[in-house]
This record gives sequence, C-alpha cells and structure tokens, in this order.
Amino acid sequence: MKAEQAYPLPIALDAMGGDYGVEPNVAGAVAAARAGVAVLLVGREPQIHAELAKHAGSSSLPVRVIDTPDVIGMDEHARDVRSRRDASINVCTRLVKEGRAAAAVTMGHSGAAMASALLTLGRLGGVERPAMLTHLPAKNGFVTLLDVGANADVKPGYLAQWALLASVYLQVVEDRRDPTVGLLSIGEEDHKGSQLVLDAHALLRGLHGQGVNFYGNVEGRDIFQGTTDIVVTDGFTGNVVLKLAEGEAKVLLGWVKEALGSSLKAKAGGLLVRGALKGLAKRLNPSTYGASLLLGVNGLTFIGHGSSDEQAVKNSLLRAARAHESDLMGRLTAATAAAAAQRPG
Amino acid sequence: MKAEQAYPLPIALDAMGGDYGVEPNVAGAVAAARAGVAVLLVGREPQIHAELAKHAGSSSLPVRVIDTPDVIGMDEHARDVRSRRDASINVCTRLVKEGRAAAAVTMGHSGAAMASALLTLGRLGGVERPAMLTHLPAKNGFVTLLDVGANADVKPGYLAQWALLASVYLQVVEDRRDPTVGLLSIGEEDHKGSQLVLDAHALLRGLHGQGVNFYGNVEGRDIFQGTTDIVVTDGFTGNVVLKLAEGEAKVLLGWVKEALGSSLKAKAGGLLVRGALKGLAKRLNPSTYGASLLLGVNGLTFIGHGSSDEQAVKNSLLRAARAHESDLMGRLTAATAAAAAQRPG
Repeated sequence: MKAEQAYPLPIALDAMGGDYGVEPNVAGAVAAARAGVAVLLVGREPQIHAELAKHAGSSSLPVRVIDTPDVIGMDEHARDVRSRRDASINVCTRLVKEGRAAAAVTMGHSGAAMASALLTLGRLGGVERPAMLTHLPAKNGFVTLLDVGANADVKPGYLAQWALLASVYLQVVEDRRDPTVGLLSIGEEDHKGSQLVLDAHALLRGLHGQGVNFYGNVEGRDIFQGTTDIVVTDGFTGNVVLKLAEGEAKVLLGWVKEALGSSLKAKAGGLLVRGALKGLAKRLNPSTYGASLLLGVNGLTFIGHGSSDEQAVKNSLLRAARAHESDLMGRLTAATAAAAAQRPG
Repeated sequence: MKAEQAYPLPIALDAMGGDYGVEPNVAGAVAAARAGVAVLLVGREPQIHAELAKHAGSSSLPVRVIDTPDVIGMDEHARDVRSRRDASINVCTRLVKEGRAAAAVTMGHSGAAMASALLTLGRLGGVERPAMLTHLPAKNGFVTLLDVGANADVKPGYLAQWALLASVYLQVVEDRRDPTVGLLSIGEEDHKGSQLVLDAHALLRGLHGQGVNFYGNVEGRDIFQGTTDIVVTDGFTGNVVLKLAEGEAKVLLGWVKEALGSSLKAKAGGLLVRGALKGLAKRLNPSTYGASLLLGVNGLTFIGHGSSDEQAVKNSLLRAARAHESDLMGRLTAATAAAAAQRPG
C-alpha cells in the first residue's frame, strides 16, 4: 500500500447514493483512486466490501470505508437530514466540516444533499443562496450553467453573486482566464426580458470589471454556441435548460441511429461511421461532465445525477480533488470578502 | 385565372417582413397559392411584382398585391404600430378585422406584430393575455409549446387559459383528440417548482375534464420525448426552450457532419448515409413547422422567424388556411365562453 501521507485529504463519497446503489459508486471510486485520488466510501460496509472485492488490486488503493448503515433513499424526504443525523450524506458533509475530507460527493437524493450541506457546512460569508453549477457541451468545449435547480424562485442579487462565484470557479478549477458571463434572457437587447432579468442585468453591469466579465444578455441558442463561458439564470429556467438539453441530445442521437438503419445503403454507411459517432455520443453524455457543484456553501459539495455510472462517479471525484488542490474554497472566500468590501454603505 | 370564388378568403401576408425581405415571402406565397391557398401580398408593389415575375405562371395564381409602402423594420420599435397606421403589419391585421382576409401572417418584427394584432383585433373575450404557440419536433411527431415569448412575466391564470385555448387549437387544426397538457416544471411531483407553477398546477387540476386533459407536471426532458401533446409555460421559459432546442439541434447536426468527415473510413460511410441524414435535418428544421400562432387575439395571426425561408412561409400560409377552414376562431370563442359560464361567481 502506498503511504497515506501521499494523499493530502480524501474525498468523502456517499457510496449508497443514486439509482443504481453501491456498484457504480465503488467502481468509480476505484477508478479515481487508481488516478491518485484518496476516497472515503461512506455507506454500508458489508455491501461496499463485497463490491470492492470484485475489483482486483483494490486493497492496495487509497480507499477506506466508513460504515454508515442509514441512507436517505431517493423517494424519501429532503427534510429527513434534520432527524437522521447519521445518514450517509450527513456523515459526508460532517467529514468536510471537520476537515477530515476535502469534499463531499453524492449521486443520491439531491434535495437531501443540498439540505445537508446547508445545515452542516452553512453558507459562505456574504452569499445569500447557494446555486447548483454544472457543465454542458458546447462549441469549443463546454459551457458552465447555474443555477440548475437549487432555487426555483430567486432575487436579482442572487444572480449577481452567482456570476462572481462561477467566475472564480472557472478560473481556479478550469483555468479559464477572465471568463465571460452571459445573463440568460429572451433577447440580446438590454431592455428585453422578465423583470428579474432587467434588475439582474443592472446589477451585473455594476459588477463588470470587479470580478465579473459581463458580456450582456444571451439567448437559449447561445448556450450550445458557447457564446459565453458562463450562463447565469434562475434555478427554474436552469433546470429546464439542463433537462431539455440532455433529453434533446438523447432523442436526436436516437434519430441519427434510426436514420442509419433506414436503408441497406445507410446501414452499410452506418457501420463505417459508428466509431466516429461514438466520440460524439461521449461528448453528449452527462457522465463525461460529472457531478454539479453546490456553489456558495462553506465546503466543497458535489451532487450528481441519480443515474450516474462509474465514469460519472470517477469524473466527479477527480473534479472534487482538483477543486480542493486549487484551493477553490479559499479563493471563493477571498472573492466574496472583496466584493463585500467594495459594496457601498 | 381561376375563379376567385373558389378561394373563400385570402391570407394576408406581410410581404416585406423578415430578415431576407420580399424574396422568400413571395416564393412561399406562390408555393402556397399553387397548393390552393389565396394570398394577399401586403407591401411595396414594385418590388413584389419584380419578385412575382421570377415565378413562371404566377400571374394565373390566386395572388394579389396591396401596395403598402411603409414597413416596420426589424430594428425599429414595436410601439411604432400606434403611429404608423399604414405600416404593412397594420394593413394585414386590419384586413382580418374587416373580414377581407382570413388571417394575418408575418415573418417580420414579432413585437410589432403582437402589438398590431392586440391593437387592431383586440383580445378574445375572457382571455387575459395572448400567447405565442409553436411546434417542436418530438418522438411521434411534434409537441405544441406555449407561451414562447409574448409574456416574460405571467400570472398562474394565464397558464390555465392557454392550456384551454391550446387544447382547442390542437383538436380543431391538428386533429388531436383530447390532447394532454403538461405544466413545465423542475420535477414531476406536484409540490415541486416555482410559486408560479404551484399555483398554476392547482388551477389546471381544477380545469381537468373541463376542456383540459391535464397530465400534471413535466420536465425539460419530456419535451422531446413528447410525453404530452401540449407543454404550457411562461413566455420567458418558453422562449429559452424554443431557442435552446433549435440551437442545440443545429450544433448537434454540425457535430454529426464533423464526425462523418473525421476519417477516411467515416467519410466513405458519410457518403452512404447522407440521404438518410437529410430527412433528419428536415425534421429538425424550424421551417418545417412554420410560423407561431398568436393565440388569444380576436383574429388569426401567425408570426414566424425573421430567418424564415420559402418553405417556412409556405407552411405558415397553409396552416393559416387550415385554421380558418376549420373555424378555429369560432371554436376558441365557444370554448372561452363555456369556461366563463362554468366559473363560480
């Protein structure tokens, strides 16, 4: 076994979370550990050990198990995190709070995960509401979208704060210099949009050059075009966008496959293009982008799809490790403190 | 020339409207006229006649020109419809108001078109706000989405009225029996969503069986799945959905083409599958679905993309004629009157 000292702090993974339970979680953890990330598997020890045993050589990897029998199921209530103190998601966020884990990662109940993070870790100083930040494929790579569902009803000030936090995130974790921020609206003109957008636009204009490189309004079509690095919106619209984008990609790829089977000629061609299309399918697969970051709580928390597979779990753990190594929390804290100091009054 | 009596009422087309001016409008009008639809071309007569001359045999078609020199440009203000009484869009809606045209169709300034329709035709009795209704491709055909941009800020009652009107539209014009209505939200559960959605949900439950076949909440992923025939949402979210859906389809098809050119083997296959993919591109092209219907004004009004091509113009005119022939306005009036009679108090 490698010396544990080589791995500064492990990532706590809610090992039972998600639609498929322990299997993809353990497989993803093993894959991440092979890539050098230490993992704490938080969940039912017997099941986790049985899964670990399927992976040859896993006993020499930096993977440890924390036996946690209680798990909040996908169909239970988010508010259960209050009464079930030792539920696996609460153990994960507590490990972060206590400095024993670098980040909490879960593919389980997203409402419960948000509630647990808020309850245990609290909000980052000066942040009114945390937001879920995620990535979507776009021309020239990916686009960063938030909020994708933490807040269905928002105030203009939330959007301005999220723009600042997301800008720090992209610079620190993804090495994008001076990322551009677009405000999602229904017309590029400044005077178009809902009242929320009009008010948020004014606030974002005020932040331009002070930690936010504000591009202006963007439209639905700009998301896949990658017009801006970041697209900021309320959690209702953002969640609809995320699920529409994923759903459309799935249906369209299905139609492409259907078209390739529509005639003998197309079938022959389909065999030749199969490899090329596989790369595209990978690019459109949410697993490629891993879990969403809960931005604005006082500790790293990543929340993924319930349907996450091994690859999604692995990529989420790698991103969590990268966020920790680049001191994302320290940089976010500094940025919000600087913004608070600049505020008049 | 065929006897004019064979064509009950012509459709008034704003012949100068749209990003490409008179060319696609005249070409689309000629194509629609060849399919039996009478068209009034409202715009600058010399330019229209010059375009018509390019279409052999167009002089024997049921196409007439109404010389209207003033046109509200794409970059002018919607409020100009108030002061420029003889702008082409105002002439179109006035022809409908006076019973001289069956419908007004424009690919021009959509804000101006909405304002002109409201000003000239007024609202349908009992309707608080008109909505833009459009079609998107989906599994098993298409899905009907509204509002896609007429109202950025809405009240719950608007959504309930739109559900009723859209149900009538689908039954009358598209022959869908008892179409299902989904309320766009961020979770299928009744208790999830914004305050607007929670309130609208309660109203729609109350309309279930009274002209609305309410399915419940749907999510972004349900749109392309075609889970319901109709998806109702506010004009902000709907516009984002429409533009994202179109933008994503365009980018994804571009990626498919790119993938097919990525290697010699893929290129060879690409040649074989080209025909099959063309059908898919057509299915995803907004032109296939034509203009959006402005639902809730007291007269048929269709507003299309500024970028509409000949096919989009033709399909819009055909849909307008179908709406007129099936007495959509009479059926909408009856449905809103029945709903008002059922209302308590």
